[in-house]
Amino acid sequence: MEVKLARKLGFCFGVRRAIKIAEKNKNSSTLGPLIHNYQEINRLKNDFNVGLKETYDDIQDGSTLIIRTHGIPKQVLESIATKPVRIVDATCPFVTKPQQIVEKMSEDGYEIVIFGDEDHPEIKGVKSYAKNGALVVANLQELKQHKVRNKVALISQTTKQIEKFNEIAGYLIENCVEVRVFNTICNATFDNQRACKELSKEVDIMIVVGGKTSSNTKQLLSIALEHCKDSYLVEDTSEIDSSWFAGKQMCGITAGASTPDWIVQEVVAYVQNI
Amino acid sequence: MEVKLARKLGFCFGVRRAIKIAEKNKNSSTLGPLIHNYQEINRLKNDFNVGLKETYDDIQDGSTLIIRTHGIPKQVLESIATKPVRIVDATCPFVTKPQQIVEKMSEDGYEIVIFGDEDHPEIKGVKSYAKNGALVVANLQELKQHKVRNKVALISQTTKQIEKFNEIAGYLIENCVEVRVFNTICNATFDNQRACKELSKEVDIMIVVGGKTSSNTKQLLSIALEHCKDSYLVEDTSEIDSSWFAGKQMCGITAGASTPDWIVQEVVAYVQNI
Repeated sequence: MEVKLARKLGFCFGVRRAIKIAEKNKNSSTLGPLIHNYQEINRLKNDFNVGLKETYDDIQDGSTLIIRTHGIPKQVLESIATKPVRIVDATCPFVTKPQQIVEKMSEDGYEIVIFGDEDHPEIKGVKSYAKNGALVVANLQELKQHKVRNKVALISQTTKQIEKFNEIAGYLIENCVEVRVFNTICNATFDNQRACKELSKEVDIMIVVGGKTSSNTKQLLSIALEHCKDSYLVEDTSEIDSSWFAGKQMCGITAGASTPDWIVQEVVAYVQNI
Repeated sequence: MEVKLARKLGFCFGVRRAIKIAEKNKNSSTLGPLIHNYQEINRLKNDFNVGLKETYDDIQDGSTLIIRTHGIPKQVLESIATKPVRIVDATCPFVTKPQQIVEKMSEDGYEIVIFGDEDHPEIKGVKSYAKNGALVVANLQELKQHKVRNKVALISQTTKQIEKFNEIAGYLIENCVEVRVFNTICNATFDNQRACKELSKEVDIMIVVGGKTSSNTKQLLSIALEHCKDSYLVEDTSEIDSSWFAGKQMCGITAGASTPDWIVQEVVAYVQNI
């Protein structure tokens, strides 16, 4: 099978940075997965003894705690700060930014609207910085269920699609006096998405490599499906089904921002041999 | 010919208010036409002796000057204020608002982008409040010719279409870090446009009554043409051509925000008799 890689794919700045931080802090732990890729989490555990704590109570006194790339809620961070624990912040700077914006805008009296997934750790963290709560909407239909105030500040989960973000913004602009729109979609996300879109128009099958809980990976799948109906999300080669490739000429491959290059290379080699 | 009127049409709050102000100030004058409807301007001249000055130099000492609904540039207003002239402000409050926003936002360091017609008096006035100039664009294509800064404040001419405004906003959101969007399209414009859109889908000929220099009237024509290819802009009955109605069943009629009701009534009666 012939393979073509997306012009831009895989690790973003924030993930690369977080992994370096973890590698430099052997025997530490993270609260929730550092990134949404369990193979890379396993590698950090095996090679650097970076452990994974699921709850605040599991954090041991005297230990080093790494804050995950997605950030954590402000109140949790404040609680941890009272513990005898060394905190190392690996929150992606592109996630710290919306946290700061939400805090400032809510102080300035704007209603906060967040385009994102309520249950995603990034959004739980970002939302926690709103003084008086925030409205989180996953799409325009959800937004239409709510009455919005006259002065709104709008931000996006870093991994969302700009077209969908603009739909939300457009509705708010129609219905509010002032909408302060902060484009907090990260460039790496934007570049990977654009490259995925281009590639999926050229090929007859698309493989998106990445974690099933990774928001940006799921966005890539959704974009690929728009242009190539035979698009699949796999975490590694074990999930690839050879029958998908019957009668296909060219396979496009892309990968989420938290997918390590070695997994991408394994998938490329595997598909080439089909 | 059967006639159906738009659910909302004609005089808006700002025009009605300006005419009342003019009627209360007999023997005064305006700098530029008070509203974009020459028949109404003639009526004010004949019945109330409200004259029309084309330039600043024509304004006589000791006279009363009415500021037109569209407003005038800040620098002209300041010059007039130094003259022994009584100033009566008939600027529509919905135009004063974007003037104030532009002044404040440019003080706060935002690049000002105005969606509007560079040569329209409202925009000349609004733009004059920007401390360091403003970018005026009539459409998305024009905007794309320019490099925009990271922090932009966007406002609209009061008479523009919200869909086009959102196109401009969407492009800026994609290319800037923060876009502060002020929906300065006036409600009357919005209501008249929506009613025009609904009506033009129902009928097989549309007549838009209003001044040829009136921005909101031209917008109505553009909306009508999208849904009814036989749409015409007329200033009064003298411009109506009976041949337009050959084979037509139902004529929709709407009117711009500066079109007096008596002209609309004349057009309705005229079309009914065709």
